[in-house]
Amino acid sequence: MTARMNDLGIVKRNIVRADKAAVAKLSTFGVATIHEAMGRVGLMQTYMRPIYPGAHACGTAATVLLQPGDNWMMHVVAEQLQPGDIVVAACTADNTDGFFGDLLATSFRARGAVGLVIDGGVRDVKDLTQMQFPVFCRAISAKGTVKATLGSVNIPVVCAGALVNPGDVVIADDDGVVVVPAAVAQMVADAAEAREANEAEKREKLAAGVLGLDMYKMREPLEKAGLKYID
Amino acid sequence: MTARMNDLGIVKRNIVRADKAAVAKLSTFGVATIHEAMGRVGLMQTYMRPIYPGAHACGTAATVLLQPGDNWMMHVVAEQLQPGDIVVAACTADNTDGFFGDLLATSFRARGAVGLVIDGGVRDVKDLTQMQFPVFCRAISAKGTVKATLGSVNIPVVCAGALVNPGDVVIADDDGVVVVPAAVAQMVADAAEAREANEAEKREKLAAGVLGLDMYKMREPLEKAGLKYID
Amino acid sequence: MTARMNDLGIVKRNIVRADKAAVAKLSTFGVATIHEAMGRVGLMQTYMRPIYPGAHACGTAATVLLQPGDNWMMHVVAEQLQPGDIVVAACTADNTDGFFGDLLATSFRARGAVGLVIDGGVRDVKDLTQMQFPVFCRAISAKGTVKATLGSVNIPVVCAGALVNPGDVVIADDDGVVVVPAAVAQMVADAAEAREANEAEKREKLAAGVLGLDMYKMREPLEKAGLKYID
Amino acid sequence: MTARMNDLGIVKRNIVRADKAAVAKLSTFGVATIHEAMGRVGLMQTYMRPIYPGAHACGTAATVLLQPGDNWMMHVVAEQLQPGDIVVAACTADNTDGFFGDLLATSFRARGAVGLVIDGGVRDVKDLTQMQFPVFCRAISAKGTVKATLGSVNIPVVCAGALVNPGDVVIADDDGVVVVPAAVAQMVADAAEAREANEAEKREKLAAGVLGLDMYKMREPLEKAGLKYID
Amino acid sequence: MTARMNDLGIVKRNIVRADKAAVAKLSTFGVATIHEAMGRVGLMQTYMRPIYPGAHACGTAATVLLQPGDNWMMHVVAEQLQPGDIVVAACTADNTDGFFGDLLATSFRARGAVGLVIDGGVRDVKDLTQMQFPVFCRAISAKGTVKATLGSVNIPVVCAGALVNPGDVVIADDDGVVVVPAAVAQMVADAAEAREANEAEKREKLAAGVLGLDMYKMREPLEKAGLKYID
Amino acid sequence: MTARMNDLGIVKRNIVRADKAAVAKLSTFGVATIHEAMGRVGLMQTYMRPIYPGAHACGTAATVLLQPGDNWMMHVVAEQLQPGDIVVAACTADNTDGFFGDLLATSFRARGAVGLVIDGGVRDVKDLTQMQFPVFCRAISAKGTVKATLGSVNIPVVCAGALVNPGDVVIADDDGVVVVPAAVAQMVADAAEAREANEAEKREKLAAGVLGLDMYKMREPLEKAGLKYID
Repeated sequence: MTARMNDLGIVKRNIVRADKAAVAKLSTFGVATIHEAMGRVGLMQTYMRPIYPGAHACGTAATVLLQPGDNWMMHVVAEQLQPGDIVVAACTADNTDGFFGDLLATSFRARGAVGLVIDGGVRDVKDLTQMQFPVFCRAISAKGTVKATLGSVNIPVVCAGALVNPGDVVIADDDGVVVVPAAVAQMVADAAEAREANEAEKREKLAAGVLGLDMYKMREPLEKAGLKYID
Repeated sequence: MTARMNDLGIVKRNIVRADKAAVAKLSTFGVATIHEAMGRVGLMQTYMRPIYPGAHACGTAATVLLQPGDNWMMHVVAEQLQPGDIVVAACTADNTDGFFGDLLATSFRARGAVGLVIDGGVRDVKDLTQMQFPVFCRAISAKGTVKATLGSVNIPVVCAGALVNPGDVVIADDDGVVVVPAAVAQMVADAAEAREANEAEKREKLAAGVLGLDMYKMREPLEKAGLKYID
Repeated sequence: MTARMNDLGIVKRNIVRADKAAVAKLSTFGVATIHEAMGRVGLMQTYMRPIYPGAHACGTAATVLLQPGDNWMMHVVAEQLQPGDIVVAACTADNTDGFFGDLLATSFRARGAVGLVIDGGVRDVKDLTQMQFPVFCRAISAKGTVKATLGSVNIPVVCAGALVNPGDVVIADDDGVVVVPAAVAQMVADAAEAREANEAEKREKLAAGVLGLDMYKMREPLEKAGLKYID
Repeated sequence: MTARMNDLGIVKRNIVRADKAAVAKLSTFGVATIHEAMGRVGLMQTYMRPIYPGAHACGTAATVLLQPGDNWMMHVVAEQLQPGDIVVAACTADNTDGFFGDLLATSFRARGAVGLVIDGGVRDVKDLTQMQFPVFCRAISAKGTVKATLGSVNIPVVCAGALVNPGDVVIADDDGVVVVPAAVAQMVADAAEAREANEAEKREKLAAGVLGLDMYKMREPLEKAGLKYID
Repeated sequence: MTARMNDLGIVKRNIVRADKAAVAKLSTFGVATIHEAMGRVGLMQTYMRPIYPGAHACGTAATVLLQPGDNWMMHVVAEQLQPGDIVVAACTADNTDGFFGDLLATSFRARGAVGLVIDGGVRDVKDLTQMQFPVFCRAISAKGTVKATLGSVNIPVVCAGALVNPGDVVIADDDGVVVVPAAVAQMVADAAEAREANEAEKREKLAAGVLGLDMYKMREPLEKAGLKYID
Repeated sequence: MTARMNDLGIVKRNIVRADKAAVAKLSTFGVATIHEAMGRVGLMQTYMRPIYPGAHACGTAATVLLQPGDNWMMHVVAEQLQPGDIVVAACTADNTDGFFGDLLATSFRARGAVGLVIDGGVRDVKDLTQMQFPVFCRAISAKGTVKATLGSVNIPVVCAGALVNPGDVVIADDDGVVVVPAAVAQMVADAAEAREANEAEKREKLAAGVLGLDMYKMREPLEKAGLKYID
């Protein structure tokens, strides 16, 4: 295949999804823990927020690139969904229109999708909340969209500042959204597990009044950096 | 009446309110549905958010134009309220001060108002939530306001990007705020009803796994637009 | 002590905290009431929001100045906390990283802190909500921070536009965050009490349909200002 | 004509433009002066900025309502332009795409337009600056737009928070954009003239060291309001 | 003097201004250099921008606290100005109205002021540019203000996130605005001088192709921190 | 090489740069033209602005990933520069500190760099403008940075919403910043050339008064879409 100047108007049917066991394991950890386990990379920008408190989703990314004010490709991606997928929608321009509502959520769920992450707006928030369909977005907007211009499905996209390849694991909760490349999903899941175990012990000590200064042995480096105590 | 250079310092007492039956019917539909039924116009900007999840209001607009940091006119509009009105407050400049709190809410409710839409800030959010008085605003701010400069009441205002004439129907819910001109309220209510009926059927099909691609007959136009499927 | 060019790298151990009785009394009033009782000053900017609805905190300020992307000083301030303190964290630059999570909350609580006000980001929102540890912040972000550069503890800081001296009373609720200088805490508490009593009576009148126009005797000044009623 | 639910898909050919003499007179005053002469109303929001310092335009509004990411209607409005018109472009949703560039500027100028005010983005800024074609916009963006969905031409629009009727006078300079309804154009021009004359005299006094406190006789009202001088 | 609950309605006539020689010396350095010389503190937020490229001002702060939409106090501060002062205007709430224009600039200059730093809006930008009166602000707005509510003059204010005491040295240029406490003005001026000398030498080396890696001896600490070079 | 969980702490020395002839050709076109020639993809977000009007740069990307408030890696990337490179700096978090000033510009230029694109802040704007060193950034800030935490050099980065691989062509001018993948640089340069030729002819017709409606044959599709002309 020759190099192309752009990827608009393309639907990739076969994508390599991250290992199911790794996805299952990642689904048991929070976004902050996974982000740390990855070495502090992979986060989307902080304007991506859940539409209801406690929303949580973890799945393999089915990606879609939208045009501003146009949700045609949302119907195209629906056909490509497999159980356990999470739809990740980017847009070719900053746009907060309502690309998604309860009808599309019904369709996505029927096809097995576990949630939506969209760098744009959504609507029917009350219905989506009642359905407990987890959505993470940049805006809520009743503004309808047209179906006139092609985007693409299952190509690499930049969504809210993060690169997402189709098949990557995407985890979203109250703390934000993180992307784990498919190739390192198991490794990150293991690292998250180790970190979590570690945290339980720390939490206990801190609850007992032990200071982080002592637990993390910070007093010496702080003194070396020049910290002065005065009265 | 001669043309005036501005409308500051004016209170219009007699306004023509939208038909009560149309308002009642519109109150049974969501903002997204009504916006679609109108032909995708009439929305306020997306920064207008409810102060608590699930807030909903539908009423005839009593309008008020405020000066920055000054809520004098809020007391003037209170006297002009009739049961079923929703107060729509615009400001002559960008300002997020707390123009409104639980005392004014008590007064507005006593006069029959069903809610407030304000392109500014409000305070006493906890009390307003306990009262279940629906407020849609651009900010929450404890900052108090003065009573020193005139604005106007029941003149046409631009609120959060939408033109509102006194008497228009204003509907607000978790998806945002939409304005329906009084003259077309019944027509829009009927169109919303038709659309809603239509949606129930679509939802059922989508829940059963039918694709939007087929239900909306999109495959041909997508192919014509040049969509390519690759493996 | 000679004048210093800056206060980075300093921890002040002994600070004068506001009178406990005044703090206790202030904790019974809302932010809007206290802000009014102070003469409409002392508010932080409106982007400071609680991480869960209904969050409320009132305490004596232990201040910390952070560097962007660095939460080292959060561990240093932990040691300086006394029961009833609220941590007020400013940053030397605009930054929304997650400086604080459930481990630090566990530590702060063990040391007696009643909450956190931070001009930056926090994470572990679900855990913090379950702990009912009140946090008021400018952003939610899973982004981790390093421990590499000195800031200071218990120096005067500007947090979200408000000057906070260590020992000042800081009150935060759904309406925002207000700072009461330690020296006037009792005076402000008394003024808030007077105001609150006053409000109950007003609320009753307004609920009975009395207009603010009459209750506050606004008709004459409005007419004098040139307000015109038209039909 | 019956009431319509929306005005999408409509081009109004005959509009009543403000009186040419009034427009000519208004073109000699700045936006701040005209805004004052109107009684402090009619301004667009402050995010509307000129693409080069010193840009100035004054004309009769030819209005266009765009869809996000779609500039089809810009070609439709071109045909409706008459010498002395200024194009005022609103959008049905928040969108910063580049709806306009040097080709459209060439076309607009050939049809007699004196400038563009757009609540969206533009591109080819270097060329537009060389042409000295005055543009006032919310963003600069190279992002291209499609031609797929209808908007309207010469209907009333809300642009950057201000209501603009076709034929109104729109004046834009470094201070922002102001809208003068056609019916009061002459009256506002006269008031601006009076104000300007007045200002020259004031400027002279102030330059000589006279204080505004004395020139505007503010000392008494300030004292009455409770101003205290301390040492 | 007893503690006051707030400082509204007060004009302080006698303030201690920073040493003239220190101010003169500071005026020869840029904002970035002075900020470094102070130990990286004292900057206002980055939204404060000059109204024309190349604007530069250095003076002793005469402070004023404004109410939103009200510029009454600007006339009060004018009387308190002494040659070499720079006016620093804060506001009790977020507000972008045009508090200042060419008339006030004429008055301020006649009183000896060297510039204005305002956490609000200004207008008459073209005139101010022609006058070469340096203004640093958060917005440009033609919106006029009223004269109805008291603020204060020459009290400590928080302006764009920085604490400014009357008499402090304020320096503003294309890089932003920095505040130097009066007590350390000479010390900071000396530190800035040392730093500047130092920079000339570095610049020469870098221009000759020497790497910062070598000049600042970074190779060892980078390796220690774990930096890996790959091919 | 095994899959890595993250790419922090890595410097890639050998990168494949786009063909020099293609880069040279691309440097003769504007950002808007190149973006169109690529099929309307590849733009950075619109908040990326030049520090002076008329700034223009076209080069092969040397990428750097920074940590918030830390510019250590800027010195590391300097060593990797080759003549014709443009530095593209991303940050692991939203941060507007001044990562770059005239000393680094001197160093970059000495190493052959043609400009800087940074999703962060810069300072010494006056000096950079005098040097005519083209910088495109999200903010101007005098805030200094530390040198404490590793990032990476010449790895793929997401900068202002666009994916940039080391060696890609990056073009920046008054209209924004666009990224051309190295593999398609020649193809895009050719397409830009074709488009430009085409534009000259169109410009001439439009200047002569021909309407886009006719030149682009839009009348029929507009009618088909339902456009109505009324009087």
